[in-house]
Amino acid sequence: MANYKRGKQSFILPQPPVITHWASVAGKKESEGPLRPWFDATSDDSHFGEKTWEQAEKRLQQQTLQILLKKSGIDAPDLVLSGDLLNQCIGSSFSLRNTGIPHLGLYGACSTMAESLLAAAMAVGGGFVDQAVAMTSSHFASSERQYRFPLGYGGQRPPTAQWTVTGSGAAMVQSTGHGPQITSCTIGTVMDLGIMDANNMGAAMAPAAYNTIRAHFDDMNMAPEDYDLIVTGDLGQIGKEALMELAAQDGTSLGGQLTDCGTLVFDNTTQDVHAGGSGCGCSAVTLCGYLLSHMVSGRFQRILFCGTGALLSPTSTQQGLPIPGVCHAVSIFYGGEPWTT
Amino acid sequence: MANYKRGKQSFILPQPPVITHWASVAGKKESEGPLRPWFDATSDDSHFGEKTWEQAEKRLQQQTLQILLKKSGIDAPDLVLSGDLLNQCIGSSFSLRNTGIPHLGLYGACSTMAESLLAAAMAVGGGFVDQAVAMTSSHFASSERQYRFPLGYGGQRPPTAQWTVTGSGAAMVQSTGHGPQITSCTIGTVMDLGIMDANNMGAAMAPAAYNTIRAHFDDMNMAPEDYDLIVTGDLGQIGKEALMELAAQDGTSLGGQLTDCGTLVFDNTTQDVHAGGSGCGCSAVTLCGYLLSHMVSGRFQRILFCGTGALLSPTSTQQGLPIPGVCHAVSIFYGGEPWTT
Repeated sequence: MANYKRGKQSFILPQPPVITHWASVAGKKESEGPLRPWFDATSDDSHFGEKTWEQAEKRLQQQTLQILLKKSGIDAPDLVLSGDLLNQCIGSSFSLRNTGIPHLGLYGACSTMAESLLAAAMAVGGGFVDQAVAMTSSHFASSERQYRFPLGYGGQRPPTAQWTVTGSGAAMVQSTGHGPQITSCTIGTVMDLGIMDANNMGAAMAPAAYNTIRAHFDDMNMAPEDYDLIVTGDLGQIGKEALMELAAQDGTSLGGQLTDCGTLVFDNTTQDVHAGGSGCGCSAVTLCGYLLSHMVSGRFQRILFCGTGALLSPTSTQQGLPIPGVCHAVSIFYGGEPWTT
Repeated sequence: MANYKRGKQSFILPQPPVITHWASVAGKKESEGPLRPWFDATSDDSHFGEKTWEQAEKRLQQQTLQILLKKSGIDAPDLVLSGDLLNQCIGSSFSLRNTGIPHLGLYGACSTMAESLLAAAMAVGGGFVDQAVAMTSSHFASSERQYRFPLGYGGQRPPTAQWTVTGSGAAMVQSTGHGPQITSCTIGTVMDLGIMDANNMGAAMAPAAYNTIRAHFDDMNMAPEDYDLIVTGDLGQIGKEALMELAAQDGTSLGGQLTDCGTLVFDNTTQDVHAGGSGCGCSAVTLCGYLLSHMVSGRFQRILFCGTGALLSPTSTQQGLPIPGVCHAVSIFYGGEPWTT
């Protein structure tokens, strides 16, 4: 049997699956931020025409998938790999009801965009499906209600808090075609350093992010300089600084290449989002718009996309347990002629 | 690139991954049922030494994984694919904290044992990891509290209700070795026929089960007679009858080969479980004990293992939405010399 495993946590794709198309849909606040030009659609209606926040999130995924399928000309993909933050992932499963599309549900908290891409790379790269959609979403209001307080309560947010992105991103991963390629992946481990503050998730996820990035370089015999960009999912400003500190303690400089979707998605000086953006949608809308578009335009050739997730639940927090983190990394390469999407 | 896709929803494993070892741990009520001889461990303490039901479920997975790793002699598997019913799947993620084991979280409700086996078959069969653990769990008390009522409330259970199994099952899937082999898989689609009764989940899942079983036969050009056993996850007595009715309407007889883990795991005449067992643990402890042991003993040569999941959440139910169902099927074959585990 072929062996594509590398090191402890990584694997290569000798025939790299191609991200042929991508789509993103975002909310009003996100449309007022710096990434607006790369969203396929935005809505001023936070309910997206639905009655509840949870159904709004379902609708977000439906819209994103519709746009992706239209762009790609594929009516019935072989597989959708998706998940979200809602209890029992109802954003994902309800969005696919009666579509006839094979579906595998994932739970990786805010790491889901990377986890779904990684799983899609396995499914397509292994020859088990011809194409797979990697998709996720989050919604500010459904997350606040579920993890913290109902919006009507008007709870105060500490400076370390992040703002859950209302948005959904989806990527079409195919065995052939034109576009950025997935060349290797690193599967994360669950790290728990005892962070207890559910309003400081960046700090809770930073150790997992560092662990996975370190494992990627070790497993693949690579270094930060091999990437134009190392981009974490939603560490935010505080988590990003914690990650840089962890790297510095280890003698690794990530400075020049490192960025975080949580610091890209909003204008942190004017949009009052405190430590930055968060949520599954944060890295999803940043990847499936700004980042992939800048790859094919020629600005970035090699990206290490590192989805970060805080694996807490309100129940675990209420029971006094710390917040475990996870991070999955996907190495994406584009070496073709520049084009614009 | 190799193409192992078959039909609309299925794929084959030309070099079939091997289920080399399996383990199951169950609770007190399960230990009083007919499957006791095949459990690796049981506990009379429903808290499994922990303070909360959720942490008890975490402990269940930890115990199961420990037994599996000991049996297999593998200290650090390349990957654990796992999920559970708890909000944000904390049973799975907390059980793997700081183990250093790469982890991909899944959400497929009670279909998770089949979903994790299917994903493990992709990961191992594609050559991306040498071995992967497929694991899941459920706990009666954590499920009742989350989906229905706290136990102390003493809510009445209607005759259609099922009893969530307290148990965890895990399987070691490897690229080489001796044991039952995964020869093909069928990925389910999300079906919603408008069933609203959260106390009749068997009926909600039956259409998805039939759809996936039908797709498996069509895609693989097979028939029910090709299997010694077609075993669904947790339809229970009512759901199993609904499935047989759906098949009969279609002119397909599943009678002789069909069984359901929810009707195997308890003695339905003496254990007061109404329509049968349910939960991720139901199919997990039945597969990772009774079923796989009976394969290697020579009793069953070919099994179609069909994990069934009801993709509801308490929120979707409270918002008046119906219950979508999903079913993933894994074809397992053992043709070697009979042996006992």
